[in-house]
Parts: sequence; structure tokens; C-alpha cells
Amino acid sequence: MKNNESTSAVKIIPLGGLHEIGKNTCVFEYKDEIILLDAGLAFPTDEMHGVNIVLPDMTYLRENRHKIKGMIVTHGHEDHIGGIAFHLKQFEIPVIYGPRLAMTMLEGKLEEAGVRDRTELKSVRPRDVVRLGSSFLVEFIRNTHSIADSFTIAIHTPEGVIIHTGDFKVDHTPVDGEFFDLHRLAEHGEKGVLCLISDSTNSEVPGHTPSERSVYPNLDRTFSQASGRLLVTTFASSVHRINMILELAKKHGRSVSVVGRSMLNVIAHARNLGYIKCEDDLLQPLHVARSLPDDKVLILTTGSQGEPMSALTRISRGEHSQLRIREGDTVVFSANPIPGNTIAVVNTIDRLMMQGAKVVYGKDKGIHVSGHGCQEDQKLMLALTKPKFFLPVHGEYRMLVKHAETAQSMGIPAENMVIIQNGDVVEVSKESIQIAGKVPSGIELVDTSGSGMVSGKVLKERQQLAEEGIVTVAAAVDWNGKLMIRPEVHVRGVVISIERSLLQKWVEERIEDFLHYRWSDFAQSANGEQAEVNWAGLQG
Amino acid sequence: MKNNESTSAVKIIPLGGLHEIGKNTCVFEYKDEIILLDAGLAFPTDEMHGVNIVLPDMTYLRENRHKIKGMIVTHGHEDHIGGIAFHLKQFEIPVIYGPRLAMTMLEGKLEEAGVRDRTELKSVRPRDVVRLGSSFLVEFIRNTHSIADSFTIAIHTPEGVIIHTGDFKVDHTPVDGEFFDLHRLAEHGEKGVLCLISDSTNSEVPGHTPSERSVYPNLDRTFSQASGRLLVTTFASSVHRINMILELAKKHGRSVSVVGRSMLNVIAHARNLGYIKCEDDLLQPLHVARSLPDDKVLILTTGSQGEPMSALTRISRGEHSQLRIREGDTVVFSANPIPGNTIAVVNTIDRLMMQGAKVVYGKDKGIHVSGHGCQEDQKLMLALTKPKFFLPVHGEYRMLVKHAETAQSMGIPAENMVIIQNGDVVEVSKESIQIAGKVPSGIELVDTSGSGMVSGKVLKERQQLAEEGIVTVAAAVDWNGKLMIRPEVHVRGVVISIERSLLQKWVEERIEDFLHYRWSDFAQSANGEQAEVNWAGLQG
Ligand SMILES: [Zn+2]
Ligand SMILES: [Zn+2]
Ligand SMILES: [Zn+2]
Ligand SMILES: [Zn+2]
Repeated sequence: MKNNESTSAVKIIPLGGLHEIGKNTCVFEYKDEIILLDAGLAFPTDEMHGVNIVLPDMTYLRENRHKIKGMIVTHGHEDHIGGIAFHLKQFEIPVIYGPRLAMTMLEGKLEEAGVRDRTELKSVRPRDVVRLGSSFLVEFIRNTHSIADSFTIAIHTPEGVIIHTGDFKVDHTPVDGEFFDLHRLAEHGEKGVLCLISDSTNSEVPGHTPSERSVYPNLDRTFSQASGRLLVTTFASSVHRINMILELAKKHGRSVSVVGRSMLNVIAHARNLGYIKCEDDLLQPLHVARSLPDDKVLILTTGSQGEPMSALTRISRGEHSQLRIREGDTVVFSANPIPGNTIAVVNTIDRLMMQGAKVVYGKDKGIHVSGHGCQEDQKLMLALTKPKFFLPVHGEYRMLVKHAETAQSMGIPAENMVIIQNGDVVEVSKESIQIAGKVPSGIELVDTSGSGMVSGKVLKERQQLAEEGIVTVAAAVDWNGKLMIRPEVHVRGVVISIERSLLQKWVEERIEDFLHYRWSDFAQSANGEQAEVNWAGLQG
Repeated sequence: MKNNESTSAVKIIPLGGLHEIGKNTCVFEYKDEIILLDAGLAFPTDEMHGVNIVLPDMTYLRENRHKIKGMIVTHGHEDHIGGIAFHLKQFEIPVIYGPRLAMTMLEGKLEEAGVRDRTELKSVRPRDVVRLGSSFLVEFIRNTHSIADSFTIAIHTPEGVIIHTGDFKVDHTPVDGEFFDLHRLAEHGEKGVLCLISDSTNSEVPGHTPSERSVYPNLDRTFSQASGRLLVTTFASSVHRINMILELAKKHGRSVSVVGRSMLNVIAHARNLGYIKCEDDLLQPLHVARSLPDDKVLILTTGSQGEPMSALTRISRGEHSQLRIREGDTVVFSANPIPGNTIAVVNTIDRLMMQGAKVVYGKDKGIHVSGHGCQEDQKLMLALTKPKFFLPVHGEYRMLVKHAETAQSMGIPAENMVIIQNGDVVEVSKESIQIAGKVPSGIELVDTSGSGMVSGKVLKERQQLAEEGIVTVAAAVDWNGKLMIRPEVHVRGVVISIERSLLQKWVEERIEDFLHYRWSDFAQSANGEQAEVNWAGLQG
């Protein structure tokens, strides 16, 4: 790795998605042209009070907006498309190419945000090739993942072919029959791949990720053991899983009622495009399901991560307007908690059990598999593409390190790979890969309930308020430094061990002391009418 | 289960430890005598802003303090003894019996809290029997757990023998050579046990918990692979683990420097009592270690759970005053993250790796085992004691349910067990077990930095402040309802999308509007000098 910028290299600048899972956003730049690959969002950590959405710092793109030729979307997950509507408020993107399902979901988001007119959405099919600017030829290669219609991308640049895997697992028995286009990858590998940029999510896990189809027999058995109503939860975006659940519902003679806005949304889009196949009368609204026998009912719901406002969480709290758990219900968690959500999920499970539900959950049940490839899937990707250079992405630091070790175990030299952070400018040329600089790479916090961005300063204030509470004192002081009236003391979120009246008295005395001893130092008569007071000094 | 209180039954009232892991506190009551078994603390969840410690609601014991004959302590973990110092501020406990290690640790806590004189501490040895009041004869039975000197308790009551397991695993090769006294349990089982109260922590995990000793060869291999400094972290209270780490340090020719207050504290007590055995010159302060070659140094540190203020977390942030990570360091996590700490732990791991350390972590390494028995351990406990009635404790709801299922699979009828909540009053007599009432069972939140209890009201205010921030306006109004000076507007933790000056202007106008239109409605001249203003009405 040298540190001198070269003019003929392709620049790769990930603005998000490194040292984290979330907000994947990658810039490709060649001379004065920029293309974007995905622009996702992340969800806030517990310390980010009142924040709903986390986005990458977009300073670099704002400042270089005139260079942007277009965008590529790999698939429709929020960590890949969730940021686009926000960014379009700051700069236009001439065109966005992506899979049909992602484009349909994106269209809805852009309309909701009122930015539909700031770009052009174009759906692509497997093996489609599109030109962006004069330097980039982009090819869409079908891959397999937990959402339908997902792509690995090959970008033909003047320096060579760069392959970005997107999110992938190697599923040889895909639920929708859409096989991973390993042949195109092999062809690129044969011809020569300059650089592979690859998904590191499961780089710490040995072996192969099981096929999505492997959950089918386990869900089947679980369903056949349920004698009352069935409530099933999974990620709203797991189109293949939902397809299987619908198929199994039909098999077991149960109608399906879908609960939760995001689930309804994804199913509507996926059915329109044919990614979810089911007859109209399988789906029944809740009020119809209510008149059916319990063993004819399946409720498909959001809330697999214990999200506070989700349908299942509200059901578990007995706070859902239309659904109450009753003895004999079986609740199936067809999803594992992602780290950070564990407590919320097990609390939800406990509450459901306390209300009498049987709850089926846990890794040993075989009712969930990951959508990301493990070490053996990652090795197959490396083997087929035979890249000269390697750039692990989509993972926390230790996952990137582990993925790089896997690549080294397959013969890629350590000097042909870099482990980078968000904002690092990676330059790849025929000769070398190097970190050649850094662009702004912080985070932007969005409070969707309020009026936009939450700054670091505001966040710090909120943290302090949360830890300590606040005391406000309003004191009316006349021009002579005398209290005109008893000061008003307000206390919120503060632990007070003395009586309120004592607190009031104590504050009053402190103010009077201050005024008595220090007023003359700080107050100066300005124009005979209004005293100019150095309040900051007075606080001393 | 019937619901009529009987006078001759023994009452068992767990005030904490049910539907949770933490603050284990159990009351045994017979006629007008009460004894306590353990009184632990729990740690706050993320929503409990500014809270350090969570305790059970002690109303029932405060109100019945005159009945308290004494207390039994099973072992020295915080979730079993951490609450005692706080409770002694509210009521006296005539005597506390417990193992030597727990009593030594407790003595320090009581002295620190200034309540050492409010009870008498008495250490017991295995098979010791003590009388408490006229109704309770308490027997201490050696068990095996992750801390040394741990007991299962047999309580002889007028209705029969009640066995409380305390925390246990069945470790047939204990590190300290102190075997589980299975013979005493068998004897009780043979004579007849009325009720078993048993640890449910690992009731969801099939099989046996491996012996603590099984981590030895894996730690040994890990140590032998380290070429630079070794940093090892584990729970401060895991005395057996620390013993093995010290032994291995000696074997590998490394001196040991202990970092972190709680670790130093436990080691000092455990060495004094002989539970940790090591020569004086094995332990070296950090400044001595600094002059040794890297491969002669082992640093034993707190922070295995990513606790924000712990030594290892500060080291990982580069904020520790005496320790910096350097290339070649190996950090060993000899502890698994407990749910809720996962994010903090992996973030710590990532930061350590970024600074150049090799980090050894994860379940597959065999460098940590649980201190609680799995299903097969729980079955052995049930098999030996052959209880008539069964009460699963020390676990979240689904763990209690699973433990009850295990007991049923061994032939205990469902009507002979109850799954209860904190505060439930369980009555056990020769004939039956039943829930016969409920005592107050909430939580008390302690802010140790401030002045005591954080009420639910204060907590709610803090949550609201954290989510939304606060705006305060100070306006001086004369007797005629006119602003005397421009109002002062202060904003903390609030997202503001307009200019500050505009906000100031807007607030001013709103106040003037209010005063103009509504002053006369609400202000009444009181004694000609001071207007009485209905401020609440004015806020309208
Ligand atoms: Zn992703
Ligand atoms: Zn994805
Ligand atoms: Zn415990
Ligand atoms: Zn314990």
C-alpha cells in the first residue's frame, strides 16, 4: 500500500457498511464520473435517544453531485435502499438501475418522501448490461439471498472488471427456482477479475449456509403440531420464507391474515411481480379469520425482532386492538434475533407464554437460516472469480479480518487486499490496490417524528438529560439586583432527597447570596433604563 | 391450586429472581417468623436512565421487620448478596449465616455502606446446621458453582424439609477439589423432601454442563500460542477460573498483573481464605510488568461484558492511563457475553483488533463454561431429592416453564408444582402447594451517583427528556400583563429546523399573544400589590 494518488485508478469509497452491518453505500469514481452502488440505512443504538434512522455522512456526494452519473441497486433490503429517499432531497441521481422488486419498493418510498421526480427508476433483468457515464458498464448477475430478485454486480471499468457480490449465499435449491448465475461468475474469473468486493456477514461461521428450502420440513412439522391458531413471524422482507409459509398454510388448510404494515407492503409488491404466488382467497382479513375455527387460521405478523411498535410486540403486551393471545395459540419465530435485539425478543416470547401461547423459537428448531453465505460460500465466490485484488465489505471489523484470512488461505497475497473503514478512498489499478485518502464518513441521525437531523450536540444534551434530568430556575431580578418575586423552581427527571419546599428555599437563598455579593461586579447600567448583565459571570 | 390461606403451611415468597436473572431474594415464613434466603441486585436495562442498581420492592419486609429472625446466604454472587447493604438501611437482620467467602465479601460491602453494625455475620462450613427462630433449622450442603464456597440449603420446617438448590451445576471434577455433597441430598431424598426450589438458568439447554476443569486444556493451548503479552478477562467472581489462569500463568512463565477494582477485591478475599492459591511473586503490579519481556506478562482484567467503565473497555478505547494495546498482544475472553451485553462485547473486540491485538473469543474455543447446570444436572437434582412439590426459580418465564416440563417428565404431577411471579405467596403444607396471595413486588431503582432511589415518575421524565429534549422560556411579566424584557429561550436536546433568532421571535410573539388575549381572564389583583395569576390556565 502506497499513499500517492494516481489519476488512472478507479476509486472505491464505501461511505457506509464497514465496521457495521447496515447503511451500505458505495461510491465508484473514475476521473470525473461517479456511480453509486446501494444507499442503505441503519437503525440507532440505544444511546441515540429519539433517533429513528442512521445515515452515512453525505458531504462527499453533496460536494461532488455534478459528477454523479447514476446508481445501481443490488436488492431491496433496507440496509441497501433505505437511504435513497433521504439523499434525493440533497442531490439528484440521474438514473437508478435495479431489480424489479427493489425498484417497486423504492418507488413507494420516493413517492412518500415527495422525491419521485428527482431520479429515473429503471428495472433490470438478469444478465442485463447498462452503461453509466463513459467509464462504467454495469452487468447484473442473478444471485441467491433471503429476499427475491437479488443481484451480484460486475462493473467493467477502464482498469478491469470489479465484482461486487451484493448480499449473497450460495443456495443450490432456491425457493423461487432462480439459480445463482455461477456460470457468469466463472466466465469473469476465467477472463480475469481485477477486484472482488464481497459480503463478510458470516465470515466467522465455518461451513455452508443451509438452503432456504431446508426450513420447509421443519416449519411443516411445527405447523402440523399446532392444534389452535398459528401466529408466524419473520422478517417482512424475507420473500422466500413468506412464500413457503403461505404454501404450508394452504397445505394445512389454514387461511392467512397478514398483520403489520411492512409485511403487507412487501407481500403486495411481491405478489404483483409474481415473486409471491398464492390464490386470492388464501389471504383473509382479520375480521374474516375471526369467524373461522382456530385450526383454520394462520396469522403472519411483523415483530420477529421484538420491535416495540410492531404487531407481535403489541399482541404480547395485550395492547393490540384486534388480537388477543388465547390458550392453544402457537407462535412461531421463523427468525433469529440479531445481536442487540435478544432481550427484546426473549421478553416478547416470555409475555406470549404468560398469556398461554406455546412459543416455538430457537436455533435448534431449524425454522430459520441466514441469507448470507458462510466461509465455504465465501470461498466458492473467491474460487470462481479468481480476483487479483480483494476488498471485504458488509461486516464489522473482525468479520472483515476473518474474510481476509479466508482469502489469504486461498492464495491471495496479503498485499493484494485492504481492510478499510467508511470513508477510506481505495484506489485500484491494474498494478495495485491502496488506500489513497479519506473523505468525511460520520453518521447523520434522523428523527423522523420531528424535523430532521439530530446533531451530535443535541444527542449529547439528550444523553445528559436522560442521565441527570434538569432543574430550571426562573428568577425575576430588578435593576438593583433584588429578587422581585420568589423564584420558580422546576424539576424534571431529577432525584431529590429533600422536601420540595426546602429545595425552593435553598435555591432562593443561593440566588439572594449571589445577587448580594456579585451583582455590582456584573451589572452595568447601560442607558439608564436597562441594566446590562453579564449573566455568564453571574453563574460563577 | 386452591386459593384459601391456611395457617399451618409454610409460606415461600420470592421477592426477586423470577421472570428474570438477578436480584434473587426469597422469604420463608411460618406463623410469625420470617427468614430470608439471599438478597441480590440486578443491573438496569437500557431504558432505566441514570440507574445503576435495581432492587426488589421491600415493602413486605419493611412492614414485617419485627418477624425477621435471620438470613441465609448461599454464595457470594452479586445477584445473591448485592442487595443486603441497601436493605440493612431499612431494617435490621439479627444474624446472617453464609459461606466464608460470601461473608468476607459482604463484610466489606456493609462497612462501605456504614451498616456493619445492623447485623451479625456468621460463617458456616459444609454440613453445618443452624437454628433460626423456633421453626427453622437450616443445613448447609456443599454444591459446585462458578464461585467457590457455594451451598445448597436444606430448611427443616414443621411441615417438612424444603431444599433450595441455590445456584448449582454438577461438577464431578471441581477445580478446588470440593465435591458436590450428593450424599446429603440423597439422604434427604430417601427420608422425604417436601419441596424442591431449584435453579432454572439453563433449563432450555439439553445435556450436562461441562466441568469447569474442561476449559483448562483450551486455555493452556491458547496461552502457548501467544508470543507477546497476554490479556485475559473473565468475571471477577469466577474464582475457579481465576485459579486456573494463575496456575497456567505460572506454567507458561508469565507474571500476573491484576487490573480492575472488583477483580483485585475478589482475589484478595479469596487468597486470604485459601480459595485462590498462588505465590506472592507471581502477582506483580503493572509498573513492574512493564519492565518484563512481553512473553513474560499476563494481565488479568475486568471488562469481559464490555462494561463501559471497566479496565478492558477503557484499554480498547485507548483511554486507560497505564495500558495501551500494541501489535503482538493476545486478548482472551474467558467468558461469554450475557444477553444484552453482546453489542458492547463485540464492539470491544473490534476496537482491540483495530489496535493490533489478536483476540480469542467465542463459544467454539472452549475457554468458557457456564456455572449453572443444564437439563441433565437439573434431572439429577430432582432424582436425588425426590421432592413431593416443585418450585422452579432463578430464571425468566420460559426457563421456569421448561424446568417444570423437565420435572413432569420425571414423574412429578403438574398439580404438584407452581410457576410463580415475584411477590406471589406460595403456601406449602404436607398436603398441597398453592398460590395463596400476593405481596408488593415491584422494583426499586438506585442511582448510586446521586442521592438514592429513582422513582417511576423521575424515570418517565428522563425518558421523555431523552426522546424529545426540553425548551425552557423565562418571561418577566409586569402587573399589567406586559413583557418587561425579551423572554429568554433555552433549548437542550431539541432538534430545531429554524434559525435561533426566528425561534426567539416566534416564542416572543406567542407569549405576547397569550398575554394580550388571556391575561385579564386569569390575573386577579390580590392585595393591590401582587397579582395572583392562574399560570396553569394561562398555559392553555
Ligand atoms: Zn445487507
Ligand atoms: Zn440483504
Ligand atoms: Zn445467581
Ligand atoms: Zn451464582
